[in-house]
Amino acid sequence: MPTVVSLNTDIGEGYGAWAIADDQALLGLVTDANVACGFHAGDPDIMRRTCETAAANGVGVGAQVGFADLRGFGRRFIQMPMPSLVNDVIFQLGALSGLAAVAGTRVRYLKPHGALYHATTRHDEYAEAVVEAVLAFASAGHGELALLCQSGTRLARRAEAEGVRVVAEGFLDRGYTADGLLVPRGEPGAEISDTVEVSRRAVRMVQEGTVRAVDGTDVSLEVASLCVHSDSPGAVEVARAVRAALEQAGVELRPLP
Amino acid sequence: MPTVVSLNTDIGEGYGAWAIADDQALLGLVTDANVACGFHAGDPDIMRRTCETAAANGVGVGAQVGFADLRGFGRRFIQMPMPSLVNDVIFQLGALSGLAAVAGTRVRYLKPHGALYHATTRHDEYAEAVVEAVLAFASAGHGELALLCQSGTRLARRAEAEGVRVVAEGFLDRGYTADGLLVPRGEPGAEISDTVEVSRRAVRMVQEGTVRAVDGTDVSLEVASLCVHSDSPGAVEVARAVRAALEQAGVELRPLP
Amino acid sequence: MPTVVSLNTDIGEGYGAWAIADDQALLGLVTDANVACGFHAGDPDIMRRTCETAAANGVGVGAQVGFADLRGFGRRFIQMPMPSLVNDVIFQLGALSGLAAVAGTRVRYLKPHGALYHATTRHDEYAEAVVEAVLAFASAGHGELALLCQSGTRLARRAEAEGVRVVAEGFLDRGYTADGLLVPRGEPGAEISDTVEVSRRAVRMVQEGTVRAVDGTDVSLEVASLCVHSDSPGAVEVARAVRAALEQAGVELRPLP
Amino acid sequence: MPTVVSLNTDIGEGYGAWAIADDQALLGLVTDANVACGFHAGDPDIMRRTCETAAANGVGVGAQVGFADLRGFGRRFIQMPMPSLVNDVIFQLGALSGLAAVAGTRVRYLKPHGALYHATTRHDEYAEAVVEAVLAFASAGHGELALLCQSGTRLARRAEAEGVRVVAEGFLDRGYTADGLLVPRGEPGAEISDTVEVSRRAVRMVQEGTVRAVDGTDVSLEVASLCVHSDSPGAVEVARAVRAALEQAGVELRPLP
Repeated sequence: MPTVVSLNTDIGEGYGAWAIADDQALLGLVTDANVACGFHAGDPDIMRRTCETAAANGVGVGAQVGFADLRGFGRRFIQMPMPSLVNDVIFQLGALSGLAAVAGTRVRYLKPHGALYHATTRHDEYAEAVVEAVLAFASAGHGELALLCQSGTRLARRAEAEGVRVVAEGFLDRGYTADGLLVPRGEPGAEISDTVEVSRRAVRMVQEGTVRAVDGTDVSLEVASLCVHSDSPGAVEVARAVRAALEQAGVELRPLP
Repeated sequence: MPTVVSLNTDIGEGYGAWAIADDQALLGLVTDANVACGFHAGDPDIMRRTCETAAANGVGVGAQVGFADLRGFGRRFIQMPMPSLVNDVIFQLGALSGLAAVAGTRVRYLKPHGALYHATTRHDEYAEAVVEAVLAFASAGHGELALLCQSGTRLARRAEAEGVRVVAEGFLDRGYTADGLLVPRGEPGAEISDTVEVSRRAVRMVQEGTVRAVDGTDVSLEVASLCVHSDSPGAVEVARAVRAALEQAGVELRPLP
Repeated sequence: MPTVVSLNTDIGEGYGAWAIADDQALLGLVTDANVACGFHAGDPDIMRRTCETAAANGVGVGAQVGFADLRGFGRRFIQMPMPSLVNDVIFQLGALSGLAAVAGTRVRYLKPHGALYHATTRHDEYAEAVVEAVLAFASAGHGELALLCQSGTRLARRAEAEGVRVVAEGFLDRGYTADGLLVPRGEPGAEISDTVEVSRRAVRMVQEGTVRAVDGTDVSLEVASLCVHSDSPGAVEVARAVRAALEQAGVELRPLP
Repeated sequence: MPTVVSLNTDIGEGYGAWAIADDQALLGLVTDANVACGFHAGDPDIMRRTCETAAANGVGVGAQVGFADLRGFGRRFIQMPMPSLVNDVIFQLGALSGLAAVAGTRVRYLKPHGALYHATTRHDEYAEAVVEAVLAFASAGHGELALLCQSGTRLARRAEAEGVRVVAEGFLDRGYTADGLLVPRGEPGAEISDTVEVSRRAVRMVQEGTVRAVDGTDVSLEVASLCVHSDSPGAVEVARAVRAALEQAGVELRPLP
């Protein structure tokens, strides 16, 4: 059983004058920051500031890439040519890498956002395009780049087949089915908001590699990083409680390598 | 007198389905490509394709950075906070660098585009911001980055004061005043369209370091790279004629180092 | 058999400094202009200029509405909430109506563009949303608004069920199947480029209400307006030839009422 | 002395998933809503929802037009060709009018936002362009359209010279100089945050047509509508307090005609 885990959050998801989460507080609690890259949220100022705060707090930086869709916050599926998707992902990786380097840190992993994340779990070609972009960028002199995503998905399997390191992600505030998948939003048990329960699940996921599914059975779950949704109400409280519970249980919180 | 010169052009200035110049033909004639970075023109697909063609043709790649203004093609002045400008330039450098690396080449220099170029020649703070971005990006592990601009401008002076290498640019199709500045567009002699005259001026600029001003006097002019405006009518013919005239005069055309 | 027909074209599809078709020439040949509304192409300057030229030439104005996707030219499907689609269509209708009114004309019909057009022929909810927007806009004091689209599609049927007038559209440069549908692009016979054949088909569609399908059979086809694709090579020549052939055959070309 | 006044606020200034003010609460307190039109903030969904809420609350609707600059929230000056500015304003007016009509209301006035507002007070050509757009739109069948702005500015004078009705605006939370101008932000006395003082000033502005300037003198001030800045902290409390103070003083709050 691992006694080390990463705590990640989607961050830097404002745009210009708009903010959506308490980034400052969250960056004091997580170990890894999935920084938005300007396509679904984020702008150069926010990207740099987020990287600087992450660096100052010893928080690792990952690229949270999405569809080019500010209006839809990257939550709307866009059916696009795969070469364009590959190039869009490389563009976002490059832009964030430039700002991260200037901020004294570097991009260590990639996590697809919103509708792009879902597309990579449902359509092989979207999974392939994202993995192709990660490989192309990493092998062009930018150093190793991991992929942060749920274990067992099309995206994870494709990445592993291509030799890209996968960091298995667990979701703190979401219910699981007996198959280890997420309960779709809108269905009973899809969301868990009780801070105590979320904390208990976090400790169990990390120490036992297990989560209680909605049908009451226990499901094995590989988890190297736990995700706190920054735009949920109470995100800061959840992050604080989970962090405290993990530390009290003797789990070390450490940024992804 | 130098017998080596670079021939540069603004390129990759389409967007999505739109094109503005015959990029393919021009990339067969110039030695250096000022690739648009998505803010005033260009998108990830065009940026990658342009870098790949440049690499295949032995053409060097520079970042043509601009204001975020697709509608105005980067020709409208935007009064923005200087930290935002610094970050916007780094974002563009990073994005292009990512795609250039994947295309097997790298970004060697930066050239400001349109209204941003003019702003850097008129306002000290805009010149400082661009130079700050170049220095920050270069010193964060991206290798040396030169600045392509007219000699003697605020931008050139600021760059030199900060230790950034300046590549002196000469304009083939523009008239000069007795002070070595460009005749403002709209005034008599501002534009030169005759291919034969343009070619003759090109050879003289390179071999004698001199240009004939609109008042008939000869002006000294430092030139390490000659610019062909890709969106002028007849740009390809101008590039072809100038290239032939320079080669016939024994001038070597070579990409910027 | 009708002896009157409208000739429509997608127009005003540039953006800022970019153009994609010879709008000036086409507006001298067609009877109706499907003006892009800024979402997939077009900007306020182009929209106004296009309306002014249309008005000066006695050409009718329709709103060519699309997904908000300049990068993809409206050709990428976006899965969006239906209330947002309704509002996006009304926004486009309002913006074009404002500029059309100032140009001395008015918006008489709507035609969905690209991926939105295809979505309305495949998904009931997209058809419903477009019809809902047309009805809402028309009944809010903007006068009658017709829908220009292929007869028999989901969109056409929905419009008719809701009392929206449908103008049946025929495609000059596209092959038809024996069912009266378009041959999908990429398949044999999908595109017809021979100007003489296109002209002959145009006359037959209008005078006989018939088109020769790819399998050699004749298919009945209701056509009130013929579409010239403005971004095909030779669009101007096609429009000129079709116009001449129709006039010679005694068909009157007249804007939609 | 007037005993009737309008209370206006900038509203609908979110974008997609982002919000910036408590629009719902403010629309229960003001009489007139300056609705953002998608250029500096706002999108079709927000525009429609804001108009619907305004209509349901008996709140009047005005168009808050700005530079096309989501990233800068319309606060960055853009030097653009005047015909483009005219068309941009008409586009915004048309789009909002379309959505307002569907929401059962109409656009009664225009107020320039942020950097565009400042440009119209400093540069004659910007003032002329905005007035030209208002006149063109109004005279093209959209009904009378007033201009909401500070009395005595270039914009107000230009509007009056062209026969456009000006609604004189007073600022509740800003200090005034002895000339009746606003104290520039950053200088002492520029901002007033005390709710009691703001309320007292509001009553005095309306009942006596006077405001106490930063130098202690009393200045005459023509005010037909008082502005509550929606994005200030405590905007809702300010609006509530001012409304109560005015009603207690016997002033009637009424939407602009």
